[in-house]
Amino acid sequence: MKIIVDAMGGDNAPKAPVLGAIQAAKDFGVEIVLVGQTDRILEALKEEGIDTLPPGVEIAFASQVVTMDAAPTTVLHAYKDSSMVVGARLLSSGGDAFVSAGSTGALLTVGTLVTKRIKGVKRAAISVVCPTEKGSCVILDVGANNECTPEYLQQFAYMGAFYAEKYLGISDPRVAILNNGAEETKGRELQKETYALLKDAGDLHFIGNVEARDVPLGGADVVVCDGFSGNILLKSVEGTATFMAHKLKEMFTKSAATKLGYLLCRSGVADFKKLLDSREVGGSMFLGIQKPVVKAHGSSDDYAMMNAIRQAKICVETGVCQAIRDHMDQMNAPSGETPAET
Amino acid sequence: MKIIVDAMGGDNAPKAPVLGAIQAAKDFGVEIVLVGQTDRILEALKEEGIDTLPPGVEIAFASQVVTMDAAPTTVLHAYKDSSMVVGARLLSSGGDAFVSAGSTGALLTVGTLVTKRIKGVKRAAISVVCPTEKGSCVILDVGANNECTPEYLQQFAYMGAFYAEKYLGISDPRVAILNNGAEETKGRELQKETYALLKDAGDLHFIGNVEARDVPLGGADVVVCDGFSGNILLKSVEGTATFMAHKLKEMFTKSAATKLGYLLCRSGVADFKKLLDSREVGGSMFLGIQKPVVKAHGSSDDYAMMNAIRQAKICVETGVCQAIRDHMDQMNAPSGETPAET
Repeated sequence: MKIIVDAMGGDNAPKAPVLGAIQAAKDFGVEIVLVGQTDRILEALKEEGIDTLPPGVEIAFASQVVTMDAAPTTVLHAYKDSSMVVGARLLSSGGDAFVSAGSTGALLTVGTLVTKRIKGVKRAAISVVCPTEKGSCVILDVGANNECTPEYLQQFAYMGAFYAEKYLGISDPRVAILNNGAEETKGRELQKETYALLKDAGDLHFIGNVEARDVPLGGADVVVCDGFSGNILLKSVEGTATFMAHKLKEMFTKSAATKLGYLLCRSGVADFKKLLDSREVGGSMFLGIQKPVVKAHGSSDDYAMMNAIRQAKICVETGVCQAIRDHMDQMNAPSGETPAET
Repeated sequence: MKIIVDAMGGDNAPKAPVLGAIQAAKDFGVEIVLVGQTDRILEALKEEGIDTLPPGVEIAFASQVVTMDAAPTTVLHAYKDSSMVVGARLLSSGGDAFVSAGSTGALLTVGTLVTKRIKGVKRAAISVVCPTEKGSCVILDVGANNECTPEYLQQFAYMGAFYAEKYLGISDPRVAILNNGAEETKGRELQKETYALLKDAGDLHFIGNVEARDVPLGGADVVVCDGFSGNILLKSVEGTATFMAHKLKEMFTKSAATKLGYLLCRSGVADFKKLLDSREVGGSMFLGIQKPVVKAHGSSDDYAMMNAIRQAKICVETGVCQAIRDHMDQMNAPSGETPAET
């Protein structure tokens, strides 16, 4: 398996992607192609006392770096020799997955226009894995599409279900629409019409609407939403968790007694922190693209990059994209015929 | 000051509203009118060993009770002798504020159609106070209007600013639009057009967009949003806080050592819990209505009801509705003239 890694994307590039990728090559037995400015990649390695590329790791040269403020629409023209665009081309021509910590918008454009969407998929969706009281859930879309139609959301429901099943190992995942109430009549036209579409989808474990409050409590395995609402959901979970982690720290540092209390609870606090650590979760997956494209957090360190690469590897192994492709083929097949006969 | 209290609204009625109101009459020196079924109100008092109504508390009879599943549009006809509708009529005819723990949708309808909106206000908004790392912020709308126009949001911005200033005592509150990014170009058309309107509002401390992540961290004092997005924001903050409180409990009950740790941190844990206790915050305020209408949480106990009544009292004292009325008069006045001359 060959995983393409954008060596120049993210706040800590090239060091974090390079070291994370080398660790991944070693630990997970995957081949790695580091894409970027060769001299800077080698320099990052040298700083760590590594003089030669480890086995299974190669470099593909790309002269440019997509800046964080680059307008996504300009990327293919203004940054055509960037690590991101070259990486996506290498993905198309033989790579199995692509991991980047660069700009989300640019990566989405590159994924959609270079790697291309699966036939029949109307829009790619950015999906994240969010910890919940019962384990984890998939939320999509969290930012690719501010405006959605019921048909987009219907596709997101299937794509999210395949992702939850394959990547998270949840069998028969419970799919729900993010809404402002549980009843079928709740929400905007978008939610009501999507409800009508999903209610009749026999091959989906559709459980109706889920309120935002129940998402962290494990109310659904797949939370389907437009990119604007999904962004609000995801970011407010993050913000609240950060707020509470700060308050927890305040609580433990209040006095000599609470500091002793902290020492007694240390292992529990570590579990608590781990739960909130975005580095553990990996990155966000662009669903609907021909091959796995994983966006690592911009602030990723080498550990987070390694986890994002592991995530990409699992998606390749479990065939998330193939499952979506098969589903789309089936949807596109003229009724009465099986895809094999078309 | 006369505060009308719906004695029959909420899961714990009539006991919680009745006892909360009696406590409020005693502690805050307000007159209370308990609206509902007299026999049940007196029975609730008797159960607590109270045989006569305390000074400053009276009962207004209403034979019906609005059920939680009543369609808001039917309330004025099917429930015209309910505690909610009668309460709203009493508010119009001499009351200063109305507090109810009944159905949000029904109360909004009653507030809008019986108490009526302030002249010029296009839509009433449900506003909540949310704890943040820097104190508190106002979020509106959190559910009254799924679909909004930039003009609605512009009005919400002003109404929320008056509420933050008067009720929370924040001088020159920082007003922001809830969005999926900080830049002016982010969001849907609604957010972009609202940005353009608020940018030119000289008398508002508009600070641009706020991401959901920064709301719990104190990024703005007033968070302006459509009711659908606001609902997602509010509910996911609640859900995440609940999730983390459960995890915290797990952490402290893990072993004998962590239980001892809990004892050492007890006062801090109490502060932490208090922060999350919806009973402390009071209820949600319907802004844009002629007089303060406060919706207490459906599960309110007497303590929460008392706090909701205190909230109503502060809104009356500080003149939140009057400030909105003055602002609307100024907006409605022909340019070049002052409202006094029209």
